[in-house]
Amino acid sequence: MENKSDLTALRAAIDEIDRQLLDLFCQRMEVVAQVGLYKKAQGLPVLHPAREQEILERVRHNCPDEMGDYASDYFAQMMRISREYQQHILKGEQ
Amino acid sequence: MENKSDLTALRAAIDEIDRQLLDLFCQRMEVVAQVGLYKKAQGLPVLHPAREQEILERVRHNCPDEMGDYASDYFAQMMRISREYQQHILKGEQ
Repeated sequence: MENKSDLTALRAAIDEIDRQLLDLFCQRMEVVAQVGLYKKAQGLPVLHPAREQEILERVRHNCPDEMGDYASDYFAQMMRISREYQQHILKGEQ
Repeated sequence: MENKSDLTALRAAIDEIDRQLLDLFCQRMEVVAQVGLYKKAQGLPVLHPAREQEILERVRHNCPDEMGDYASDYFAQMMRISREYQQHILKGEQ
């Protein structure tokens, strides 16, 4: 990423990244909802702390060191939001 | 997204989405850092609440209705984390 000095160009880059992030986030929510429905149908526990821990460790391992804490916070928040959506879907199922 | 009934396949789909999310998140952090440095060099205020509000409105507009609250929460958290990283970079600059 060359050093774009123009604020407009930098914001346009963020907007494009955000567009892709939103698309992927919505995809993730759909799959997380399917996981919840599948687990419920199979009588499996919906929460899986070890799985979340595995994801956080992989995140920290796969990003630049100086971003590790920030990326972990980001994924922890995203998993919290995914769980809330999953529960929302499962309640709608009752 | 066809209704994948196998938990392993669903988790693999989430892992692939997470890989892309992490990549985009790190890109966003780099650009946000550049925005901070640019603003500092130009003597501009780093925080821009109206810009964040614009992003949240666009997010809500561009995702399925039932995910609106969740997507807004997700972007608000991501912008909070981006701001913290931006301040971390700017402190390192002093």
